[in-house]
Amino acid sequence: MPEPLPQCYLNGEFVALREARISPLDRGFLFGDSVYEVIPVFAGRLFLFKEHFDRLARSLGEIRIANPHDHEGWLAIVEQLVARNGGGNMYVYVQVSRGAEYGRNHAFPMPAVKPTVFAMSSPLPVFTEALRTSGLSAITVEDFRWGRCDIKSTALLANVLMKQQAADAGANEAIIVRDGEVLEGSSTSVFVVKGNVVATPPNSHRILPGTTRDAAVAIAKERAKVEIRKITIDELRNADEVWISAATRDVLPITRVDGTPIGSGRPGPLWAEVSQGFVSERQQLAGTRAL
Amino acid sequence: MPEPLPQCYLNGEFVALREARISPLDRGFLFGDSVYEVIPVFAGRLFLFKEHFDRLARSLGEIRIANPHDHEGWLAIVEQLVARNGGGNMYVYVQVSRGAEYGRNHAFPMPAVKPTVFAMSSPLPVFTEALRTSGLSAITVEDFRWGRCDIKSTALLANVLMKQQAADAGANEAIIVRDGEVLEGSSTSVFVVKGNVVATPPNSHRILPGTTRDAAVAIAKERAKVEIRKITIDELRNADEVWISAATRDVLPITRVDGTPIGSGRPGPLWAEVSQGFVSERQQLAGTRAL
Repeated sequence: MPEPLPQCYLNGEFVALREARISPLDRGFLFGDSVYEVIPVFAGRLFLFKEHFDRLARSLGEIRIANPHDHEGWLAIVEQLVARNGGGNMYVYVQVSRGAEYGRNHAFPMPAVKPTVFAMSSPLPVFTEALRTSGLSAITVEDFRWGRCDIKSTALLANVLMKQQAADAGANEAIIVRDGEVLEGSSTSVFVVKGNVVATPPNSHRILPGTTRDAAVAIAKERAKVEIRKITIDELRNADEVWISAATRDVLPITRVDGTPIGSGRPGPLWAEVSQGFVSERQQLAGTRAL
Repeated sequence: MPEPLPQCYLNGEFVALREARISPLDRGFLFGDSVYEVIPVFAGRLFLFKEHFDRLARSLGEIRIANPHDHEGWLAIVEQLVARNGGGNMYVYVQVSRGAEYGRNHAFPMPAVKPTVFAMSSPLPVFTEALRTSGLSAITVEDFRWGRCDIKSTALLANVLMKQQAADAGANEAIIVRDGEVLEGSSTSVFVVKGNVVATPPNSHRILPGTTRDAAVAIAKERAKVEIRKITIDELRNADEVWISAATRDVLPITRVDGTPIGSGRPGPLWAEVSQGFVSERQQLAGTRAL
């Protein structure tokens, strides 16, 4: 039986994802002048909805695009998208660009044009039992991204090149380092564990404030000491455990960095607890409202 | 009489620009995973065609997109676009993205998808007599772009925000400074003149190798000493003349930086000579082939 054709949301309408079309004059295409969010959905329920749309509002504000919807409006769109695509487990991707202007000028269109709003859903990546046993591998890369990584913009070419560099090395993620300081993964947040202490870098213009990272910190705090502070590359290499977190993947164990095993070379016990914590968290959420 | 509807080129076809459509799954839209060029056209003739498409080939190579056309192929597309839009003076914008993939993954699609090729033409910006008398104004901004500005990518959000910052200040351009060193404008190259010496910064990962900049250097060399070297912000402020160059604008005089007059506060004599040099250069080009 063929897969049902997934629908997406584009500027007020639900259309088949394969048939959705935008103008090449869209500033998202011409300039990377847009921001986005990724929200996980479990059993048809949005996880950390408010936190993700708070961050979207912040990103939009930082680049001065008027938020086209309030949280209630976003919830209505995203819930309808999830329902139309059959509910269950998935993730929702939401992108807002500054819109399409007839012409090409770096500065904002004057008067402002209508932002382009695009949302789609996709299956969650599958975390196989093999990965659960062996963990993931990462390489380290020197940071060459822009200076406002706290804005979740689609101007992601540096992140694309870093992720590809990891793929070329047979690794799953690129961990970004600047002047010996560990920042984050190319599409994830980073944690290091030594003894009973979990450390993750503080927010700055060099780091995206991680929504899932914050959730992991809250869960980890019930089980260990958590420190929000700078992390050196030596601490990364000598850690007992290294984790990454992302909206679509909760926390995942990194067991090799630049080809060298981390700690025991296997997923650590604290990671297993925090990972399980996410599962419990979601069970408690069942039946509550997203907003 | 209504303007004739301009045509654009999209993936092998010429269509009305207003009706051209791409998928929101295009990696140019999702990731800024694309590169571009802007080529000026005078009296229907492409100016510095080879240089612009050499640079496009370099940008594509740096991000590992296979160049969809050789120079002859590009020339055929661009010449047809110019002819369809009536010839005369204009500029052609060409963008190549990594293409559209059904899904969203940072790493390159495997196997590779077909790149998206988009080209449009637009009127050249008009440089009014008032501007020719008064010159343009610029602000200085601290660099927060990515570390590979030598790649002419569409991940331009930093440049957009800088240009808007200039517009907010009533200025025409933002001159980018890093640690006291002048790099380039948000969409232009920068020159400073002191006495009979013209200086412009050397190429690096922080600067786009300027095609029009190179042409200006060649023209300026016939009239002054040209130095390719680092420029400090103090040299900028204390220059006799400051110029910017861009494909669509040749060289233009900057007569105010951060509200303070440069030199006499009026366009300088060397600028006028080099600007005239571009006009002569183009007259010599008439009747020669672009390739």
